[in-house]
Parts: sequence; structure tokens; C-alpha cells
Amino acid sequence: MPIYQAPTKDMNFVLHDLLKISEADIPGYDELDSDTTQAILEEAAKLCENVLAPLNKVGDEEGCHLENGVVRTPAGFKDAFDQVREGGWTSLDCDPEYGGQGLPYLIATAVGEMFSSANMAFNMYQGLTHGAYNAIHAHASDELKAKYLPKMVTCEWGGTMNLTEPHCGTDLGLIRTKAVPQDDGTYKITGNKIWISAGEHDMCENIIHLVLAKLPDAPEGVKGISLFIVPKFMVNDDGSLGERNAATCGGLEKKMGIHGNATCVMNYDGATGYLVGEPHKGMRAMFTMMNEARLGVGLQGYAQGAVAYQNALAFAKDRVQGRDVTGVKNPDGPADPIIVHPDVRRNLMDQKSFIEGARAFTFWGAQMLDRAHRNNDKDADGLVSLLTPVIKGFLTDKGFETTVLAQQTLGGSGFTQEWGLEQFVRDARITMIYEGTNGIQSLDLVGRKLGQDGGKHVMAFFDMVKSFCKEQGDVEGMAEFVEPLKAASKDLQAAGMYFMQHGMKNPNNALSGSYDFMHLFGHVCLGMMWAKMARASLDALAADASDKEFYETKLATGRYYMARQLPMTATHLARIQTGADTVMALDAASF
Amino acid sequence: MPIYQAPTKDMNFVLHDLLKISEADIPGYDELDSDTTQAILEEAAKLCENVLAPLNKVGDEEGCHLENGVVRTPAGFKDAFDQVREGGWTSLDCDPEYGGQGLPYLIATAVGEMFSSANMAFNMYQGLTHGAYNAIHAHASDELKAKYLPKMVTCEWGGTMNLTEPHCGTDLGLIRTKAVPQDDGTYKITGNKIWISAGEHDMCENIIHLVLAKLPDAPEGVKGISLFIVPKFMVNDDGSLGERNAATCGGLEKKMGIHGNATCVMNYDGATGYLVGEPHKGMRAMFTMMNEARLGVGLQGYAQGAVAYQNALAFAKDRVQGRDVTGVKNPDGPADPIIVHPDVRRNLMDQKSFIEGARAFTFWGAQMLDRAHRNNDKDADGLVSLLTPVIKGFLTDKGFETTVLAQQTLGGSGFTQEWGLEQFVRDARITMIYEGTNGIQSLDLVGRKLGQDGGKHVMAFFDMVKSFCKEQGDVEGMAEFVEPLKAASKDLQAAGMYFMQHGMKNPNNALSGSYDFMHLFGHVCLGMMWAKMARASLDALAADASDKEFYETKLATGRYYMARQLPMTATHLARIQTGADTVMALDAASF
Repeated sequence: MPIYQAPTKDMNFVLHDLLKISEADIPGYDELDSDTTQAILEEAAKLCENVLAPLNKVGDEEGCHLENGVVRTPAGFKDAFDQVREGGWTSLDCDPEYGGQGLPYLIATAVGEMFSSANMAFNMYQGLTHGAYNAIHAHASDELKAKYLPKMVTCEWGGTMNLTEPHCGTDLGLIRTKAVPQDDGTYKITGNKIWISAGEHDMCENIIHLVLAKLPDAPEGVKGISLFIVPKFMVNDDGSLGERNAATCGGLEKKMGIHGNATCVMNYDGATGYLVGEPHKGMRAMFTMMNEARLGVGLQGYAQGAVAYQNALAFAKDRVQGRDVTGVKNPDGPADPIIVHPDVRRNLMDQKSFIEGARAFTFWGAQMLDRAHRNNDKDADGLVSLLTPVIKGFLTDKGFETTVLAQQTLGGSGFTQEWGLEQFVRDARITMIYEGTNGIQSLDLVGRKLGQDGGKHVMAFFDMVKSFCKEQGDVEGMAEFVEPLKAASKDLQAAGMYFMQHGMKNPNNALSGSYDFMHLFGHVCLGMMWAKMARASLDALAADASDKEFYETKLATGRYYMARQLPMTATHLARIQTGADTVMALDAASF
Repeated sequence: MPIYQAPTKDMNFVLHDLLKISEADIPGYDELDSDTTQAILEEAAKLCENVLAPLNKVGDEEGCHLENGVVRTPAGFKDAFDQVREGGWTSLDCDPEYGGQGLPYLIATAVGEMFSSANMAFNMYQGLTHGAYNAIHAHASDELKAKYLPKMVTCEWGGTMNLTEPHCGTDLGLIRTKAVPQDDGTYKITGNKIWISAGEHDMCENIIHLVLAKLPDAPEGVKGISLFIVPKFMVNDDGSLGERNAATCGGLEKKMGIHGNATCVMNYDGATGYLVGEPHKGMRAMFTMMNEARLGVGLQGYAQGAVAYQNALAFAKDRVQGRDVTGVKNPDGPADPIIVHPDVRRNLMDQKSFIEGARAFTFWGAQMLDRAHRNNDKDADGLVSLLTPVIKGFLTDKGFETTVLAQQTLGGSGFTQEWGLEQFVRDARITMIYEGTNGIQSLDLVGRKLGQDGGKHVMAFFDMVKSFCKEQGDVEGMAEFVEPLKAASKDLQAAGMYFMQHGMKNPNNALSGSYDFMHLFGHVCLGMMWAKMARASLDALAADASDKEFYETKLATGRYYMARQLPMTATHLARIQTGADTVMALDAASF
């Protein structure tokens, strides 16, 4: 049975040493002293370690079952969901007006990492509800909000997002689901949606579907899509549940992973729906909450890596095999623990240095989102929009890769179901696909975000890196972090320059390099995070911190990232600079 | 249902345009004109496409079942195995003295790729038998050979390899299985083995287990291991089957993939065994056939990539979504096929350029093995020994990565079981682990093979690359292949130099870079293969080949590899040159 221990100590390091949140000038952050965050994280840790993590394998093995239109979740899920609800974990960052606790999104992010590591398939039920909550909160009328949000905040009612149809996923302009206006102001929704996570299940008394559909007079393409609330059960004016709506689950998808989450075919047969926001503006409504949703998927990616790493590490310390070539380390045993071997170290350090960098990057992004929303800071909003595809694409690619590395640490045991590593690999795999495939993320980055507001945000990013490097370059102990970061950042700028110079002539010169650019950008971001964490660690050591070993370990891990991961930027740049010629050379028929 | 089309055309290109096998001075090769190889490949293709590939999903979904000590294989496997036997596919490269066809190993390799692509789990039953055949053929007495080999050549009897025990896999010096000599010259074998592929099943009338065990007077460690034949059913002198031996399957492993293959716990309870070769020389016996076994696993790795790619390509041509930014390609449809998009191309070209390079490299390696065995060529033997860990480690890592890329091409469909891509990912994953994890391959490469015979073989490799570059550098059209190859080869030499200069002082400086070195080496090998394939294609075009498009596509694919894959060598070198410091900095307790 795999283990999970919530990394509360490292989270507190990120929150307080790195981000210094209680000093940040963001409404609500002043209450986040380290005692408060520690108390929250420890409570969440208990639930994750004792209740959710043990159900992860159960969910995988048992899966979900559709019986007479009802989806039965794996044994134990419903009880656990009740505990999550009772603990108030569903409402952390929700609006107090609707019963939420009004905590910063950053706190929900830290807790979210634990929930995702412990049981990603389970946590999706809550995650999807939160996504639907956000969309309704941002775009629906006060009346709809008052009717639906309070019970979604508590997760008494679940929520879903219905975008994909069999013939269209990425290209939503092609959707066929129809919404026909009725005399009473409601709409009749008819169509088929696929891959609807948590579309039907037995853990909530109602499910509020958000459905993209087209009005009869809708313009062609994405500019003709509207967003509707379609409840599973109609909600009476007094809040009680009424009739069953014509929104039903037509089947469950068999998938590689996240078996504990019900991936549904949803059929809408003239179901009653309510328009959210303006007609034809459904895509905009979706997009405004996409930053948070995509950040949440990036988090899932590295969170799977994080739990996989813990299990790989435990194995590497326990399993004895072979001897340290530089001298026996375990003379009383038949062999040395495999953690003595350099290639096992290389593997573990790749995992560790990525995960800790990813955590810092994600928390930093969550803080930017808080700044954007709570301070109404347009620059923070622009920066986090720019980096959202990097967080989603890079962290899920590398998060998946990390689960594969962790699996490899266990050798043959990693391939067996018994040890659980292979489940982390299978579960992590979806994060590279949903909420926009990583290829789409890279197009969003290069095709939209780079040039947004005249390139203002990418320039701000470079300025931020540059001023950090300038400020820190001569500080004792920082050169070994600042110099590689400078080099990597230079590669990123050169790649951007290549796109500017060659993308005008032929956009394919930019698009052919978009994926490499996303990874290049990701490495620079993690390099920056590691340099900042080094700075924070040096400060703590200079201030004679009680836990010297923690900070020295942090510095050593950062040095590894700089030495062994950051050199990837050169290869990404080299690939980008070859342009579209070799990528597009073949006719489709010649493949 | 996934598709599979055997790549006979590309195989013939490798055999005849690239390797020019019928002109090669290797006994048996003179008979391999293109009509002969075409006939063999086409027959194999029929079986693979029509019989084995359709059973791949069945095997995955149904798996193997242990009932009263007997393993039931998935429905259809036994019939298919009969067809494989009847077609003579099990005996291609076996010794005619024992009923084999005596064909070169190269031919068995080409056919093996198809079998592995079509149904890897199924083909392992035959593959393991062939491995056991090889060990017995190379090391057992004439009497044992006469008794066991003829029926193993036909696969009427299966074969297995029993190395791993619960407490030891990589470090076989720790094995506990005992062999006690009996008065009649036999041995009583007692112990538990795990992860025994094809250890028990219902497709053969007998199973011949090869078991590593220790004699009572055995020296400690790997120098005290002996190899035994332990038949499932005793074999009488007239060849008929006698009593059941005390070799039983105690359980089946639940695994991430290759469900169609039975991975058995094997219990030997005083089972009767026969010594193969000399006492205490069991590891040597294993090692002599390891080159072929590991080459076979490298082949499995890229073969899974190959079939996954075919399915990704078909999807990319068929699925319409979005429009080509440089101009609509499918004006009559609602959108363009996704193959028009540069990032989809990038993905497909990564797959295609790897697979074709890997095929060439593996076939070339098989030819080297034939040269080593059939010409008794020590240099060829040394070279293939050097490159075996590269073939195994690099091709399985990249093969797995290719299945993941192919899965990504399908977006959400790639994650569903229906489309079958996720099975290729799960099946390919084992190739990075078994037959020595890829970490172990990299240690074998850097710790043993580089310095073997005074570094003679690695020098021969560099000479081969160098003289090719010198000879071809000025030939028209070759510079774009030769120049990147030169640069990559220089990186490889620099890495080797780093090991020499820093590995003496501290072996961890070399071992910390072993994995990167294996990949660096792999890229140089594939770069060399692409340069050679470019040369062959230019020749064919100059000779006015009828199929111009094929050769031009080959050149374009090679250019892609040079531009987009080979730049990885710089990053691998940079990582290697940082040495052991950052890798080994942490105490085990500080992780």
C-alpha cells in the first residue's frame, strides 16, 4: 500500500520564507501568520493521510459503476466526502456571501495539493464543483447565484463542466448542443456531451451542470456559444428539490486512470436550463475562470509526482541491493540501500528538485491570482495569464515524467499494482490532456499570451528576472544560482526573438516551436523559483535558523536543479531556432 | 480497435538499401535477396495483422488466470500460438541440428518487430522460450541439448528464465535458491522465484525452466551461482513426458501492462534439475546470451512506439478540428484534419524519426551479432557488446516516450481504453525495467563496456563515425547530415573524456552521468543511422529509383531528426560535466 505524508513543512517554507505571505500587501493575507497556516495544513494533512490516501487504491481497483442511470462511486468515497464537507474543506476560498470562508486562493491551493496527492480521482468531484461555482459566481445573475451557490459551496450539490462533444473538444466552435428559449425565460437544452467528469454520482443530492450550447440565432463558431445551468433535479423557489430534469448519464468511459472519478456521457433531452451571463458569451465566461482551472491541473500534475516521489524515496532507503562503489555503507546487511548508488540519486534528485520547484511556482502563481483578484491588480492578472499555460503544460508534463521516474526507482515492483506506483503514472497521465491538451497550452502561450497587451506581460516577466539577477548577482552564495538563471533567461529571450523575427513571415515558424518554448519557459520559471528559494534559505541560515539541515538541503536541491535541469533550455532553443522547415516538410499523404 | 500494418517496405529499405545484406560477407546472407526477405516479411505480416494484433486488446482485458495451479491464457491465444508454430515462426534462426531453419538472427529480428508490435504480451511466450533455447544451446551438454532443444525450437515446449527472488533482482549474488546434488547426477532445487514471465500457461505441453541456484559448496556472491534445467514434466528417455516435477506456479502478479503474459511466482520444492554448464558458472551462461536478449527488449520498446505511431497518424489524418493558420486545407469540411497543425506535426515527426532510426539501429545491431557469431568476428562482438546497453536503454526509454506522444496525439481519446493507445503505453513501460533496468544498462555501459578490452570498442565506434563523416562530408547533399553528426559525436567524446579525467579520482563522477551518457550515445547512434539512411536514399534517387517519394520522405525525416533530436546531446553533455557534486550532495537522511 503506497504511503502519503503531507509536506506541510515544505509548504510552510514556501508560504513564509519564500512568499512571506503575512507581509504581502494583499487583502486577507495579513491573517495568514505561520501558526494559522500551520493549523490549517495540519488539519488537512490528517484528513488526507488517514482518510483520502487509503481510498486511492480502492477507487482505482473498484472504479465507478452505472446502474439504472445512477453512478455508484467506490466503497468509502461517500463517507469520505461527508468528512470533507463537515471539515469545511469545500468552502475555503469561497465567497462569504454564499457561505464560504473567504480565505485566499493560495490557501486553497496548498490544501488542494494535498488532496490531489492523496486521491486525485476523489478530489475531482470537489474540484469540478468549485470550477462550476467560480463560473456561476463570476457570470450568473444574483438570483441564480443565490439559488445555486450556497449548496455548491458546501458541496451538498456537485457541479460539472460540459464542453466536449463527440466531434469536438479543442474546436468548440463546432458544438451542436441546442438551447431553445421558452416563454418562461428558461431554455430547453438538447444534445450529447462526452468526458464529463463527475457528471453523475451518488455523493451529492443534486448536481448542477454547466453546459455550453447554441441558441437558435447563434452566430457561427465560438462567438455563438452560450452557457447554461442545467440542474439534475429542478430546484424549487424554497430551495427544496423538485422534479428530475432530462439530464442523464448515458454511459461511463473506461479509462487508463482516475478510475474513481466517473467520466460520463451526458444526454440532454430537452432539459430545462438557465442562461448564465449574456447570450453568445459562453466562451468568455469559460475563459475567465480558465486561469484558475488550469493552475489547478498543473497542481494535480506535480502533486502526483510528489506522492510518487515519497514512495520511491521510501523504497530507495529500504531496499538493499549492491554496494556503494566508494565504500560499503551498510556493513551489517547483505547489501547497501539502493539510495547509495549515483544513478538512483540522479533519479531521486530529478524528482525532488522538480517537485519542490513546482510547488513554489504554483503557490507563487496562486498568490499572483490573489493579487489580481483581491487587489484588482491588472499587471498581476496579465502575468498570471501569461504563465498559466506554462504552469499547466510544463508542470503536468514534468509531473507525469516524475511519476515515471519514481516508478523506475522501484524496478520491477514499480510495474506491479501492489506497490501503487503504476497508478500514480496512470492517474497523472490525464493532466497532460484535460483542461486543454498541453499542445493547446503551448499554442495559447505562443499564439495569444506572448503578444497580449503588446507583449507587456512577457516584458514584465523578463524585467522581474533581470532585476532579481541584478540585485542578487553579487550577494555572497547567490552567483551559482543567478548565473545559470541568467543564461536560461537569455535562451528564453532568444527564442522569443526568433518568433518575432520569423513568425511574421510564416506563423508556422513560431507554432513549430511552441511546445519547446513552453518547456523552456517552465525551466526558467523553476530556475527563478530555485534562485529565490536559495535567497530565502541563505537568509534563514544567516539569521541562525533552528533547522539548519532543512535550509542546507534546500540549497543543495536547488544547486542540483541549476546544474542538471536548467541546461535543457539550450536544447529547447536549438530546436526552436530550426523553425518550421523540417517540421512541415512532408505532405500529409507522405507520412 | 487499434490498427496495425506491418512496415514491410521500410524494413526492406533497411535490409537492402541501408544494410545491403545480400552483399554482406556473412554466411547465410547471400541467400537473402529482396524477393526472399519480402516473401518472409509478407507472410509474417499476414499473421501479425490478421491474427495477433486483434488479440492484443483481448489479452489486455482478459488477462491470465490461475486455476488449480494451471494458468489459463486469454481466449484465442492458444489457437494463435498453434498458427505461429505451424508457420514455423518459432524456429527461424534456430540451429538446423535441432530442427531450426538456420536463418540469420537479422531475419528473426525483423519478424520479431512485427510480432512485438502486433501483440507484445503474446510474443513473450515465444521470446522467453527462444532465450532459454539460446542458453541451453550455448552451455548445456549434448545430451541435454538433444533432449530439450528440438521441442523448444518448435515451441511445443515453452521455456523460462528464473533469476529474480523477492529480496534480489539486480544483485543476484544474494539469491537463496538451493541446488542439492543427488546420487544420480541430478539436483534437488528448492526456492522461490518471482516475476517469471510465461512461468506457467496452457499453450505448451511442457515448460522448461532455467533456474539460477546455489550449490551447497558455492562461493559467496555472483561467482557461486549455477544454472539448472528444471522441466515442468519430467522427460523420459524416449522423449515422452513423465511425472509432474515439483515446480509450480504459486501466484500471478497483477501488473500495469502485458496482461496477456503470465508473470508467475514460481515455487521449487525439491524439484529435479539438471546442471547446465559448469558449477558456479551460471552467471556467465546468462551473460553470453544477454546481448541478444537485451537487443530483443530494445526492439520491443520501439516496436510499441511503432504501432502506437500508426494509430496516432491515422487519427491525425482523420480527426478534423481547427483550421490551418496558413490557409484552409479542407474547405468542404467543418474543420481541417489536425495533421495540418505544426504542433501535431512536431509530435508525429518526433515519433516517426525515432522509430525509423531505431529500426535501422536495431537491424544494424542484429547484423553485427550475426557477424560476431557467423564470422566469429571479435570486433563485431565487442562493438555489439558495447552498444547493447544503448540499444536496450535508449530504445526502450524513447519507445515508451513515443507511445506517450502517440497517446497525446489523440487527446482525450488517447486516455480511453477504447482507442487502445493507453495499452501501448502500459505495455511499453515494462521494457524500461526488465532484462536489467535502464539504470543498470547505463552502469553496464559506463562501468564495464566503455573500458572493455582497453577501450578498444568505443574507439572503434568513434573511428567508424569519423571515417563515415570524412568520406561523406563533401558529398553533395550530405553536409546537412554529416555536420550535426560530427557535433553530436564530439559531445560524446567530450563526455567520455570527462569520465576518464574525473572518474579515476571519484567513480561517482562517471556513475552520476551514466544515464545521460547512455542517451547521448543513443542519439549519436541514431544520428549515424540517419546519415547512413540519407546516403542510401540519395543513392537510390541518383539511380532513378521508381519510388522517389519514399526516398524523399526518408531524407525529410532524417533532416528532422538532425534538427530536432540531435541537439539533445549538448544538454546531456552539460549534465554529465557537472559531475557527482550536486547528485551526491545530500545525506540519505536529508532527503
